[in-house]
Amino acid sequence: MNEHISLAHGNGGRLMRQLIDELFTPLLYHDPQQAQLDAAPLALPAGEVMISTDAFTVKPLEFPGGNIGSLAIHGTVNDLAVSGATPHSLSLNAIIEEGLPIEQLRRLIEAMAIAAQHSGVRIVCGDTKVVARGEGSGLYLATTGIGVRPAGLALGMGQIQAGDKILVSGPVGDHGTAVMLAREAFGLRGDLQSDAASVLPLTQALLGMDGLRFMRDPTRGGLATVMHEIALTTGLDIGLQEEAIPIRPAVRSVCEILGYEPLYLACEGRVVAVVAAEQAEAALMAWQGLPDGEQAAMIGEVREGQGMVVMQTPLGGERLLAELEQEPLPRIC
Amino acid sequence: MNEHISLAHGNGGRLMRQLIDELFTPLLYHDPQQAQLDAAPLALPAGEVMISTDAFTVKPLEFPGGNIGSLAIHGTVNDLAVSGATPHSLSLNAIIEEGLPIEQLRRLIEAMAIAAQHSGVRIVCGDTKVVARGEGSGLYLATTGIGVRPAGLALGMGQIQAGDKILVSGPVGDHGTAVMLAREAFGLRGDLQSDAASVLPLTQALLGMDGLRFMRDPTRGGLATVMHEIALTTGLDIGLQEEAIPIRPAVRSVCEILGYEPLYLACEGRVVAVVAAEQAEAALMAWQGLPDGEQAAMIGEVREGQGMVVMQTPLGGERLLAELEQEPLPRIC
Repeated sequence: MNEHISLAHGNGGRLMRQLIDELFTPLLYHDPQQAQLDAAPLALPAGEVMISTDAFTVKPLEFPGGNIGSLAIHGTVNDLAVSGATPHSLSLNAIIEEGLPIEQLRRLIEAMAIAAQHSGVRIVCGDTKVVARGEGSGLYLATTGIGVRPAGLALGMGQIQAGDKILVSGPVGDHGTAVMLAREAFGLRGDLQSDAASVLPLTQALLGMDGLRFMRDPTRGGLATVMHEIALTTGLDIGLQEEAIPIRPAVRSVCEILGYEPLYLACEGRVVAVVAAEQAEAALMAWQGLPDGEQAAMIGEVREGQGMVVMQTPLGGERLLAELEQEPLPRIC
Repeated sequence: MNEHISLAHGNGGRLMRQLIDELFTPLLYHDPQQAQLDAAPLALPAGEVMISTDAFTVKPLEFPGGNIGSLAIHGTVNDLAVSGATPHSLSLNAIIEEGLPIEQLRRLIEAMAIAAQHSGVRIVCGDTKVVARGEGSGLYLATTGIGVRPAGLALGMGQIQAGDKILVSGPVGDHGTAVMLAREAFGLRGDLQSDAASVLPLTQALLGMDGLRFMRDPTRGGLATVMHEIALTTGLDIGLQEEAIPIRPAVRSVCEILGYEPLYLACEGRVVAVVAAEQAEAALMAWQGLPDGEQAAMIGEVREGQGMVVMQTPLGGERLLAELEQEPLPRIC
């Protein structure tokens, strides 16, 4: 195999077959025969079948705490998880730029394989395309996930009511900050890692509670954007307590230096949950008992209102949290 | 809305929400509520659930007979169709390059909507990402399709036997040639159109026949590559009759001028079928009765052998058809 991806790796011929047979299939497929099929059979357990999809364009391809490969698995696993589903199978698309080192591609595929195994999902079909140098950014990935959830599960923004409490499973902004530092030559160094991970243990810890209204993973646009989506969709106000929102000191420092707001920065391993007030403490304790939920916090509540997101400052003041407008952040996804 | 896509259309904030709410959701979603969900429910009919995926990187984005939008729908619909499934739902990923005119994006989304409606599939979830100028090629799409086929359908390369006949549903190389002409400044003009279309009517016409062994749509790598995949997988020889393979005179002329071999050029609306000898005539007639199958032909047969693809020339000679090697063609997908 050549040392870099060439256009011939995408032409449908021998080199493409080799790339798939030697790299993608052995690392990713449980059943190598499936890689030959136009379409793969899915033997799904009983329940409501759920589908979700996500494209991944993170730059750089590798960053502290993860890479585009693990992210592409966790991202779609997490979208299924917050919908209440158990992820089952994934499809994978890889758009590879001519010139990508094949060893780097191997590392990224290995990370996918580990993340898939860890999340309990199988990659059941895939496609690779090669684009010319200067028409990509090394590698773009897209995954579509199929999962199954209990039939009749009442979970969604429509379930949210005034009085409900808002929980977050851990510190926000880690992923956005880690990628930003890995990407830009700011001259800032630190041990900041992306939080990229499967949130399945977190979502499954809450699924038995009948007071659970809604879950979402605050990725692109961050915690603030999830709050705005809830406020816009329900017409209710969100009241957040500024000092209750967990943010790592290192994230806060970097954001202060660079003038960013951590609430708009992406997480890739956190969950926001809206829970009925009477079960909020129990939900919080369930999360705090998990390795990825130790720093979970109750950060606010839902109130009658006009679809605003209000931030309550430690001194008792209030300010409106604006919706993300023009690009205030480096592109990190 | 601005006239061109900007990075802010991908940041998760207001402009991204507008782009999705004003362009993608109204054109593509039957149920606008679904566009808000992390994961969408799939209510599938009974049968074996099949999944297939494909990424689309065609350049130019619009070409005679189609565009990347219609192609992204038909491509995945066709992969499900040749597996014997009836396509049901699609996920859609769009990786948009900064600077893409929004009116062009609208045309491409409209083409997707028409192709989806025509193919009887619903787009049930999607994701958009915006990449910086110079890190894309206008628009890349990826679709994953879910379909359902009768349980226990015996269809696949493993069913192929010596003595089976090989059929193609129409002229080969139209798509590859049309895109090549639209892409390159060869100074060649013509009325050549891509064959891009749903092949569902063609596959469904054969599904009742118990002599049907295998179907595939000869896309990237063309007819020759499908023949090689069969030969390599089964260890049987493929004997093709050169003069029986339908190729439009215009495709033949362009390929002669440019030195390309039409058998390696992509089709996007054709099917290759392998059928038991005793049902081959019936299958051919079933296709020839369809609007997209009028020029269907029986082009060869499967023989005991050593996994070779042998071309029989009109004068009675034989030559081996080589597997596609280095890039002999402009990248068209």
